[in-house]
Amino acid sequence: MKKFLAGLTVAAIALAGAATAQDAPFAREIKARQGIMVYRSIQLGVLGGMAKGEIEYDAEAAQKAADNLAAAVTIDASMLWPMGSDNSANPASTALAKMWEDGAGIGDKARAMNEAATAMQAAAGTGLDGLKTAMGPLGEACSGCHKAFRVPTN
Amino acid sequence: MKKFLAGLTVAAIALAGAATAQDAPFAREIKARQGIMVYRSIQLGVLGGMAKGEIEYDAEAAQKAADNLAAAVTIDASMLWPMGSDNSANPASTALAKMWEDGAGIGDKARAMNEAATAMQAAAGTGLDGLKTAMGPLGEACSGCHKAFRVPTN
Repeated sequence: MKKFLAGLTVAAIALAGAATAQDAPFAREIKARQGIMVYRSIQLGVLGGMAKGEIEYDAEAAQKAADNLAAAVTIDASMLWPMGSDNSANPASTALAKMWEDGAGIGDKARAMNEAATAMQAAAGTGLDGLKTAMGPLGEACSGCHKAFRVPTN
Repeated sequence: MKKFLAGLTVAAIALAGAATAQDAPFAREIKARQGIMVYRSIQLGVLGGMAKGEIEYDAEAAQKAADNLAAAVTIDASMLWPMGSDNSANPASTALAKMWEDGAGIGDKARAMNEAATAMQAAAGTGLDGLKTAMGPLGEACSGCHKAFRVPTN
């Protein structure tokens, strides 16, 4: 029981600290989802670098990046996207409110990303040609969501 | 081929944008690892809330949070902790340089977190008592790393 309470205290301190430092609306959800997005982009950097010939193709490294990408795409992020957690509520987010509108098709876009990441996972370790082929749909899945639901950048 | 190039362009734009906005040392690694840490803490908030009686115990929600925590603990984060990516290189990080020192035992601490998260995954859905029992080692695994390797906060 003592150990349990010690554990709880530590968890409570960690959570309280996080809340104090970031009390803008949805700050924690936004920080978590952006961090996972950057993680995805780090993996894409490996795969894209090989596809463009900037990084020498290495089957093991490609497979690892594709496995990591798939893990980051399939992790349950549902609690990170509460309605209202868009750019108008907190400018730290670049998500547009229309993402949550009926018929916006966010589910379809998430499925497209899932399928593209799964296809990359199957292809990345088989050779550079397979990786390149899988890169197209993956880039489109990224941009499908970014173009529709992200604050435009110049 | 056209689709492939379009995909690459999109990925390149996304990566270039990220690099421009965050060119402090290791900014992307730090953002990714902090985001994943916040994700873990969101899951812990559910489990800890139930353990403390602040949230009514719900087996399905507890299991989901424990599954999510395990996924976030086991995701390959090795590329997010390059040597030198500590608080002295970029104050956005709260990681102490001694984490990377020989004998610091970071591997043991990571294994302890892994085991505690796996134990929570096995216990969370079985009842509130099981969840509470698993909470102790989990809190200790969090604090084991934070106390040793995080910039102290007041």
